[in-house]
Amino acid sequence: MAPAADTRIKVGIVGGTGYTGVELLRLLSQHPNVELRAITSRKEDGMPVAEMFPSLRGRVNLKFQVPDSAGLEHCDVVFFATPHGVAMSQAQALLAAGVRIIDLAADFRLQDTAVFERWYKMPHACPDVLRESAYGLVELNRERVAAARVVGNPGCYPTTVLLGLAPLFQGDAPLIDTGHVIADCKSGVSGAGRKAEVATLFSEASDNFKAYGVMGHRHHPEISEQLKLLAGQPVGLTFTPHLVPMVRGMFSTLYMRILPSALDVDFQALYEQRYADEPFVDVMPAGSLPETRTVRASNFLRIAVHRPDGGDQLVVLVVQDNLVKGASGQAVQNMNLMFGLPETTGLGLIAVLP
Amino acid sequence: MAPAADTRIKVGIVGGTGYTGVELLRLLSQHPNVELRAITSRKEDGMPVAEMFPSLRGRVNLKFQVPDSAGLEHCDVVFFATPHGVAMSQAQALLAAGVRIIDLAADFRLQDTAVFERWYKMPHACPDVLRESAYGLVELNRERVAAARVVGNPGCYPTTVLLGLAPLFQGDAPLIDTGHVIADCKSGVSGAGRKAEVATLFSEASDNFKAYGVMGHRHHPEISEQLKLLAGQPVGLTFTPHLVPMVRGMFSTLYMRILPSALDVDFQALYEQRYADEPFVDVMPAGSLPETRTVRASNFLRIAVHRPDGGDQLVVLVVQDNLVKGASGQAVQNMNLMFGLPETTGLGLIAVLP
Amino acid sequence: MAPAADTRIKVGIVGGTGYTGVELLRLLSQHPNVELRAITSRKEDGMPVAEMFPSLRGRVNLKFQVPDSAGLEHCDVVFFATPHGVAMSQAQALLAAGVRIIDLAADFRLQDTAVFERWYKMPHACPDVLRESAYGLVELNRERVAAARVVGNPGCYPTTVLLGLAPLFQGDAPLIDTGHVIADCKSGVSGAGRKAEVATLFSEASDNFKAYGVMGHRHHPEISEQLKLLAGQPVGLTFTPHLVPMVRGMFSTLYMRILPSALDVDFQALYEQRYADEPFVDVMPAGSLPETRTVRASNFLRIAVHRPDGGDQLVVLVVQDNLVKGASGQAVQNMNLMFGLPETTGLGLIAVLP
Amino acid sequence: MAPAADTRIKVGIVGGTGYTGVELLRLLSQHPNVELRAITSRKEDGMPVAEMFPSLRGRVNLKFQVPDSAGLEHCDVVFFATPHGVAMSQAQALLAAGVRIIDLAADFRLQDTAVFERWYKMPHACPDVLRESAYGLVELNRERVAAARVVGNPGCYPTTVLLGLAPLFQGDAPLIDTGHVIADCKSGVSGAGRKAEVATLFSEASDNFKAYGVMGHRHHPEISEQLKLLAGQPVGLTFTPHLVPMVRGMFSTLYMRILPSALDVDFQALYEQRYADEPFVDVMPAGSLPETRTVRASNFLRIAVHRPDGGDQLVVLVVQDNLVKGASGQAVQNMNLMFGLPETTGLGLIAVLP
Repeated sequence: MAPAADTRIKVGIVGGTGYTGVELLRLLSQHPNVELRAITSRKEDGMPVAEMFPSLRGRVNLKFQVPDSAGLEHCDVVFFATPHGVAMSQAQALLAAGVRIIDLAADFRLQDTAVFERWYKMPHACPDVLRESAYGLVELNRERVAAARVVGNPGCYPTTVLLGLAPLFQGDAPLIDTGHVIADCKSGVSGAGRKAEVATLFSEASDNFKAYGVMGHRHHPEISEQLKLLAGQPVGLTFTPHLVPMVRGMFSTLYMRILPSALDVDFQALYEQRYADEPFVDVMPAGSLPETRTVRASNFLRIAVHRPDGGDQLVVLVVQDNLVKGASGQAVQNMNLMFGLPETTGLGLIAVLP
Repeated sequence: MAPAADTRIKVGIVGGTGYTGVELLRLLSQHPNVELRAITSRKEDGMPVAEMFPSLRGRVNLKFQVPDSAGLEHCDVVFFATPHGVAMSQAQALLAAGVRIIDLAADFRLQDTAVFERWYKMPHACPDVLRESAYGLVELNRERVAAARVVGNPGCYPTTVLLGLAPLFQGDAPLIDTGHVIADCKSGVSGAGRKAEVATLFSEASDNFKAYGVMGHRHHPEISEQLKLLAGQPVGLTFTPHLVPMVRGMFSTLYMRILPSALDVDFQALYEQRYADEPFVDVMPAGSLPETRTVRASNFLRIAVHRPDGGDQLVVLVVQDNLVKGASGQAVQNMNLMFGLPETTGLGLIAVLP
Repeated sequence: MAPAADTRIKVGIVGGTGYTGVELLRLLSQHPNVELRAITSRKEDGMPVAEMFPSLRGRVNLKFQVPDSAGLEHCDVVFFATPHGVAMSQAQALLAAGVRIIDLAADFRLQDTAVFERWYKMPHACPDVLRESAYGLVELNRERVAAARVVGNPGCYPTTVLLGLAPLFQGDAPLIDTGHVIADCKSGVSGAGRKAEVATLFSEASDNFKAYGVMGHRHHPEISEQLKLLAGQPVGLTFTPHLVPMVRGMFSTLYMRILPSALDVDFQALYEQRYADEPFVDVMPAGSLPETRTVRASNFLRIAVHRPDGGDQLVVLVVQDNLVKGASGQAVQNMNLMFGLPETTGLGLIAVLP
Repeated sequence: MAPAADTRIKVGIVGGTGYTGVELLRLLSQHPNVELRAITSRKEDGMPVAEMFPSLRGRVNLKFQVPDSAGLEHCDVVFFATPHGVAMSQAQALLAAGVRIIDLAADFRLQDTAVFERWYKMPHACPDVLRESAYGLVELNRERVAAARVVGNPGCYPTTVLLGLAPLFQGDAPLIDTGHVIADCKSGVSGAGRKAEVATLFSEASDNFKAYGVMGHRHHPEISEQLKLLAGQPVGLTFTPHLVPMVRGMFSTLYMRILPSALDVDFQALYEQRYADEPFVDVMPAGSLPETRTVRASNFLRIAVHRPDGGDQLVVLVVQDNLVKGASGQAVQNMNLMFGLPETTGLGLIAVLP
């Protein structure tokens, strides 16, 4: 069912003053099938979007509005670029109005509401909506997303870790020691959002490197839940996020121990085959060393598969732009799929290098 | 004369291994009317472009070729993203083959060959071609560019300084003291190119700020020559370039003393009127403080006009991306004009912020 | 009156949780004559200083205390590394207890209380203390500082601009057009302090350059008041501060028009002579291009004097570390002078390069 | 045997134009017992050191000299801050003249000359000197260093990995799976030195993150050789170095699987006890997250021990300044020990934060 080239999708954005919001605006205002209808912010009601983000001058003429007067119920789809908890509070009303929902926060990521409540310190407001929602990692979940009314857009770290591990869980025979997977992940600072906080000030984060969340990070249960689905059993994961003094970019170094029975597997071929038809996943040639800048401001995610000295340790390197494939680009990819558009529509922008 | 929507321009690039080269590739491969035919590099002959610049994987399938075998003479236009001196050595042969030329180096910027020779330490190889060439600052020179076979693409600093000053030189009555114009300019490090040099190493340029070229910079005579054309007389210019620890971006702070006779002029209005129809020049509202990131990876140049305390000192702030409006984007803008395309074709990309 | 080598100065710090505070701690804890007695913070009462700033682990064993229980009245000197307005509210009580005061905020910088009130939006609490206070720019004011009970430590921008201009105002004959001095200044982000604010987030300030305060900046009246003292008449100043994506460092580019009567002056010699005996002011050889990193983490300020093409425009380049000579180092320099120690005591640390 | 407080060590530096060279100069010129006698550079013969590194103006008055005329044989100790291969070519002559040697390159790091030759592509020039040399990781090798005439200063990565692992190899009973140790290491760009190379240009390395050396890195065999000594058996190591867009700093995240027999071990206590008397190794409190900036420009190395969810995975975080504890500071620490000075002499400088 090819959509008419003149498909018009009426889009609303709730909470567009953060980085995923302005990135949605950048992508959606360059998308050929999108008509931006409304963007909300309680705090900035009345301010032209292009005044807050002059990069959009002459391109986005909307003003921020308070949610009540924004007419979101007349949109085809609403993106939530909000703190956790907002989307689930408005989901049922929008669905009742026939509006589809893509949440860039965590409200529809974790199927297990007990886990959600433990990590996000709030009860889940609509478990039934959650049950019908789809986890929006297209490459793992294409059919469900295409049919969904509500999509939980994955976290940035989970996107890299899950796509970096998925090829290992395809067949029946296990290939790696699933009890001890290590994800050593590094993120640019924009992943922390546009909140005024001391820890992400320039003078704190620049010329510095640190780990954080070693004692626990909200993306850990999200990865674990999805890995369990992929592997058919719980997967033991050690997850260490680090903060890199760069604005955009995410780099995940994944360490897996290859099982004796799988030492003959050609992992490079395995990955290449798994992603051969994926437009946004690039399995690089053997020996490659991906750099985050090669995906900066683009929706691509690149993977390199290494096996040092041909031993039993598999090292998989994954890069993405945390604000694009790790957030807003992936959200648009989900939208394309939900509305029957080619998945790459409006997402072909080439990475900005240098 | 509207061109057919299916205009195809066969493009060659000489010397595509530097930053203006890869930026040309990014822009041209997303341009709807361009067919990239060849890219040359003596040193990297045979290497796939996307191997050197993985950001182009899946998008640019060319390999670098030595110039002789690249078939440049079958192109409609050839861009030179080379060191100074290369374009002028090949210009006549290409013109004879009917190929148009856009040089991103300095060979066709300075009309005065004596000045060229003093600053670039080489004789000019084809003064006659130089004479017919156009200085490719479209906003000042649209008609000549449209008719030109050879365009000298302006330097990055001159683009900001000239567009920041041009509105002051429109009428007959002088508005400012033309004997003492000050351009305090700041550039990101990519302006220095992709040459291996100690001074632009990360560990030298990061977390540091310095002036350079205070004793003389090649863009000084270029600005002066064009200012003389604009003003109808020599303009006294003090030009101080500085190096900013950022990859892309240029910021010029221009100081002019308003003549007593012009103290009543509304300079904000003057600038707005001058650039009202320019698609890439954005005169921001009074009181604005432009930031380089608002034009990052885009072809826009933004100007803010200030007059502190309403006194006789005019302060004009100009920002651009040195690799786009300051180099490769401007080159594509010139190409569009030379081939009768709408000037904005392929150049509508929104700035990447953050 | 040479002090005994075993002079011990009991030091208190009010408000030590910001960047000038932690820099004071770094310098004072390496100072041979200082005994750190107390550091206050209402908000962090009870927290070990080294927990907030692990760089001080094993070196500073104090805990933050609320001011009332800190025993500041038993100190010889108290540094205020606080927001504007705090020092003046506590000055009289401390003076009564025989404690000397060095304020790193603005309470004792501006002698004109009307100007203070206009820019800082609060009445001055103790104009009499202000009158007896000294402006702590040692190189201009050594005798007054040595005798002072209260010192207003200069702002970072004023330090560079005033030391960059002072040699021009020594004799009776004016050397430059005092009506039109331009200070184009660039600061690292640490100058904005350790407050949680969106504008100084890493993702806002990194890979970006902007001007700010073009419409007015609090350091403008401070510079103007001191320049008037130096010149014996009001000096017209255009002051444009910019934000550089680096943590520490300040670079001021000063433009002055040389008067016809002064065209024969040897400005290089003038500057060298003026600062020949100053331990922290380095007039670099003619033709030098100072870099901020050459003073990083040190109390030195370097100056280079340029006169492009030998014309009538003087360009003076000044670099300092805004947190050291521009704040905490200068404060320690003031303390040394006030307590009869050699001015360089504890301040000999060499710049960290790279 | 306490040295007289007036011990004077005559020091020469071979090859002082790189980052370890200028860092040696910074540290040694602030060292109370050092007399800098000579510094050599074939290329920069005659240039004042302070002209190349203006941070040293007024503090280091030496000029670079060619080695033959530098009088190195009259020094007490010579540091080699040179490319690999230089120290071993001059070692015997200097030893014969009674001069001790500290090599900051790799010539005296690897005891196995076959391994040296494989990784450094040159035969070892003096295996006998190598045999008597000491591996200069003081915390593991204090007695040998104190008695050595020749010290091979450790690589930066090995310093963090070895000190991060050493406490696990103290007793007889193994605590971890020694077959599968993972070191995910991140280094600032200054580790690559001051060579003009495209890969470490600001515009390549800034706003970017990448792995390198996944297929093999020279520090791998160095770590392995020392680990084998520590463990009494070969240790299986996966080592992945990454490049961080910061100038100084190194962060190593170490992953070890705890053996079932050791699950009850208190690893925090183990580390604290091991390093209780080490002046430069700081085992931070349980739960700490070290940042590289807390050791910037200082000789400290900080360690945090984590055990996520109390499971069988041990995660050890190690930070240092790659140019200080990872290079020049450690070299001075070795010198202190070799000359009977307190190990901390001249090395007490507090980290520069922010």
